[in-house]
Amino acid sequence: MTLALGGEIYIILVRPKHMGNIGAVARAMKNTGFRHLRIVGRNRLTEEAFRLAVHAEEVLEQAAFFPNVNQATGDLQVVFASTAKKRKNFTLISLDSMVEKVLSYPKGIKIGLLFGPERTGLESQDLKWANYCYVIPQAEEQPSYNLAGAVLITLFQLFRENLARQGVRSQEKPLPFDQPLTVAQQKECLALIIQKLTERGFIHPTNKAHMEERLHDLFGRLTITEKDKQLLLALFGKIPYYSSL
Amino acid sequence: MTLALGGEIYIILVRPKHMGNIGAVARAMKNTGFRHLRIVGRNRLTEEAFRLAVHAEEVLEQAAFFPNVNQATGDLQVVFASTAKKRKNFTLISLDSMVEKVLSYPKGIKIGLLFGPERTGLESQDLKWANYCYVIPQAEEQPSYNLAGAVLITLFQLFRENLARQGVRSQEKPLPFDQPLTVAQQKECLALIIQKLTERGFIHPTNKAHMEERLHDLFGRLTITEKDKQLLLALFGKIPYYSSL
Repeated sequence: MTLALGGEIYIILVRPKHMGNIGAVARAMKNTGFRHLRIVGRNRLTEEAFRLAVHAEEVLEQAAFFPNVNQATGDLQVVFASTAKKRKNFTLISLDSMVEKVLSYPKGIKIGLLFGPERTGLESQDLKWANYCYVIPQAEEQPSYNLAGAVLITLFQLFRENLARQGVRSQEKPLPFDQPLTVAQQKECLALIIQKLTERGFIHPTNKAHMEERLHDLFGRLTITEKDKQLLLALFGKIPYYSSL
Repeated sequence: MTLALGGEIYIILVRPKHMGNIGAVARAMKNTGFRHLRIVGRNRLTEEAFRLAVHAEEVLEQAAFFPNVNQATGDLQVVFASTAKKRKNFTLISLDSMVEKVLSYPKGIKIGLLFGPERTGLESQDLKWANYCYVIPQAEEQPSYNLAGAVLITLFQLFRENLARQGVRSQEKPLPFDQPLTVAQQKECLALIIQKLTERGFIHPTNKAHMEERLHDLFGRLTITEKDKQLLLALFGKIPYYSSL
């Protein structure tokens, strides 16, 4: 599956401290279909970065290194900076609004996504190079998202929303639910059914593993309610043989 | 900000290998407003887990330990298992569908989210305890999401969609977005700027139409806020002439 965003997206890590985070970012990029990584304030990567970049080593191998944010953003056309909270003198937009803007640019536009160092985030000096600052919503003030986590959420929202606009998002309908039993009770009910099926020879040594998995899958999806249980036990208690199944 | 999901959500890590991942999961939970962590196949946490659980140590301190998936899920009512790909004999639902289901349960329902070990994911034996298997979309087959990343994406989608349904999105209290003025107010501000520019001869009869359109375009894209307005009026009120522009 390939991502057909209009713009080219550049992920820019500003003075990242931990090599593990750089590797985790590369993996998140591969997961979500992004390729261009820029790193500010470093000029090489260690083994630790590659260790975390499972199946995404190519992203690291093609990473570009810059001495400062100025040069890392200079050739781009629109830059979004990720900040954990309101920054004095800089206007915030929401993550949704940022996704909306990125997906609205025409083909070929070069877009930068700027992420700051682990502990401190981007400095005001860095934010000057951004056209917009956006913030990822969080439940509490502390902690902020981990660096690789902030990148992952951002890229996943872009990836997901882009997929959705291509009409790929599945359109499954929510089902109406009765109160399910506890899982222990659901499995107890299934165990009774399996016992009946085994007594009747429907389950036998040669198909046991396969059939049990199929039955766990089938009845698992039922999220069995008390009413279901009554019906199922009645059904399986009464049906005399299974030659017709 | 607190999450008011109907159900109680239990995050269950099945035989996690790396303590760092457990810590990162705790942080992701804190970020997105979840509290209940269960760990299968371990009975203690090391320093490394706490090191990654920045500001989320309480989640680890309150974690519950279980010898197997059976016991970790027994008291829950609905369990969703995260799998990286299609599993033989088990039906997959989409991430969106999973979020839809979770948010549709009535208050008090106990819901488990099951995540497997780093390299191998959940075994078929584990999936038997789940009511549903869901998959997080990804751009390529390899690599799968990192364990903490899969948890983060799942919880962020729940958090985000729940916020949206509460109508909290875009009016979040802790991070007030700067609201643009009404268009009438924006244009009023621009009219004052144009007036100043005219007084100073920057705008004159021969360039008036052209310059005004350019200025409307330029300042229009700013979607001027109250704070912007103060700054702009101060700027244009004070600058005495424009020969240097």
